[in-house]
Amino acid sequence: MVVGIVSYGHTKFGVLKQDTPDLIKEAMDGCLKNVEKGISPKEIDCVIVSCVDNAFSEQHQTGTLAWEYLGNPDAYGFKVESACVSGSMAIYLGKNMIERGEAKNVLVVGFEKMNKFGTDRVTEFLTHGSSPEERKYGITQPGAYALLIRLYAQKYDVTEDDWADISIKNHKNAFRNPWAHFHKDITKEGVMNSRMIADPIRLFHCSTISDGAASVLLSADPKKYTDTPVFIKGMGVAHDYLLAIEREDPTFLLCSKRAADQAYKEAGRSPKDVDIVEVHDAFTPVEPMCYEALGLAKKGEGAKLVREGVVMFDG
Amino acid sequence: MVVGIVSYGHTKFGVLKQDTPDLIKEAMDGCLKNVEKGISPKEIDCVIVSCVDNAFSEQHQTGTLAWEYLGNPDAYGFKVESACVSGSMAIYLGKNMIERGEAKNVLVVGFEKMNKFGTDRVTEFLTHGSSPEERKYGITQPGAYALLIRLYAQKYDVTEDDWADISIKNHKNAFRNPWAHFHKDITKEGVMNSRMIADPIRLFHCSTISDGAASVLLSADPKKYTDTPVFIKGMGVAHDYLLAIEREDPTFLLCSKRAADQAYKEAGRSPKDVDIVEVHDAFTPVEPMCYEALGLAKKGEGAKLVREGVVMFDG
Repeated sequence: MVVGIVSYGHTKFGVLKQDTPDLIKEAMDGCLKNVEKGISPKEIDCVIVSCVDNAFSEQHQTGTLAWEYLGNPDAYGFKVESACVSGSMAIYLGKNMIERGEAKNVLVVGFEKMNKFGTDRVTEFLTHGSSPEERKYGITQPGAYALLIRLYAQKYDVTEDDWADISIKNHKNAFRNPWAHFHKDITKEGVMNSRMIADPIRLFHCSTISDGAASVLLSADPKKYTDTPVFIKGMGVAHDYLLAIEREDPTFLLCSKRAADQAYKEAGRSPKDVDIVEVHDAFTPVEPMCYEALGLAKKGEGAKLVREGVVMFDG
Repeated sequence: MVVGIVSYGHTKFGVLKQDTPDLIKEAMDGCLKNVEKGISPKEIDCVIVSCVDNAFSEQHQTGTLAWEYLGNPDAYGFKVESACVSGSMAIYLGKNMIERGEAKNVLVVGFEKMNKFGTDRVTEFLTHGSSPEERKYGITQPGAYALLIRLYAQKYDVTEDDWADISIKNHKNAFRNPWAHFHKDITKEGVMNSRMIADPIRLFHCSTISDGAASVLLSADPKKYTDTPVFIKGMGVAHDYLLAIEREDPTFLLCSKRAADQAYKEAGRSPKDVDIVEVHDAFTPVEPMCYEALGLAKKGEGAKLVREGVVMFDG
């Protein structure tokens, strides 16, 4: 059986007035309304919510809240946290529940409410994702990524020019997304002169502190709900050591490769079959590393895909 | 197939020096060592960790840390949060994964590290479990429970005497548990004169701010690992509205009844077959309500079980 995504809901991303419960509700309501052929809450067996860290949302009953908003007393809800892959992990669990016959329809909701706090507190909360050993030395997320990026840049042919081009590409793509936090035409000069955050990471290389929520409805019987489901042909999950120096090669995202290989295998596909890729982009310079891990470029050649325009929207 | 618990691990509960990662490791190591016939990490497919709220643990990569401590690269880990039922929810998900053939063996680890903070901050963090509506009015967990308990005490025949007897019973039971936070012989006078926290809740009616971790190993093939597994014959999950006034009868724990009914049904058992009960005891006066929800007593007659000694260790 191939699980299908039959609907989605979305709030805007940005500095929002709504708090966590309202964001969850808005994303859920949208998703339920968007079901082409309609659905009753009674048909949904489980709601899985996810976020990076409750420290942001200040609300730890979000599974129960989502259950309330769904309106099916026989369903149940819970929350999954797996740092930056929380949303994917929630979808993975929902997909497995359906594939194994535990549920017919699962609603998955991801949310973040970060803009209650100043940058200092947000940075502090994000260090909760670091290894305990690194935290002892006071390292922050931009600091940890900066060290990784320096190592990668020393080893391979990648420049500040490439990073600027990636930032520009991503900001351009955002114009096609009405819910994006920024709709901003940025220049190469603008990126390369933007404020230094943690050398060599500049402001325009950083993902932003943002509020928002999104949801998808997974189904065992997708055609019942829409004529155009998106089938999940393959997924994979893998980990690597939190402490970068324990990794085989810190400049290669081995866990992303292992997860991607699982997904390719399950789907019976290879990197050559891929038309659209969305990668985790906490910091722009990591994007070429992601291309390499996904098998789209050889080791150290991720930036080539940017230079050759392969990863551009019409590339 | 009936999933079995084949091993467990435990830290002491109390004001501990160890931080979250060490607590998780200790509970996991103990569980793996306690497997009577031995087990290799390669045989464990998934580690599920759980806690009430990351605000306490200040560590949101605990799923990955548990994966590291396990030592099986092909396994995966994630964290579940469902407020006070986080641990049970993690076991429920692990049991389902095994029953549906997604995993053979799942390690479940629960942890809390609360004693980094003073009582004020802990109380603040615990309000994150309240409904958004109640939080607006500044209500705390003891405050919310106090209102509920007052309502119950007005409606039914339950007294401060009963609550004291429950506290005394629970403290007595703790002497049989080498890992318990307190080993303290308390008197009726001591309970009834202890400091008022939120009328009618007194200090000795409150569960304490504690650090600790525990783990269980669930298996599809329990006899392979021990001759004396504990079989999970039935489990249930249900929710009720966070806002007490939206509930059918705030003095009756309908969600506990619905979850218990599911478990009884799955196990083919009834309340009469139950020998040992462990209930959620955030505040002592809630214990009689739990008895009623589990079908062990009629509505309003939970306290009778204490008076008649039925719920005493040798009752």
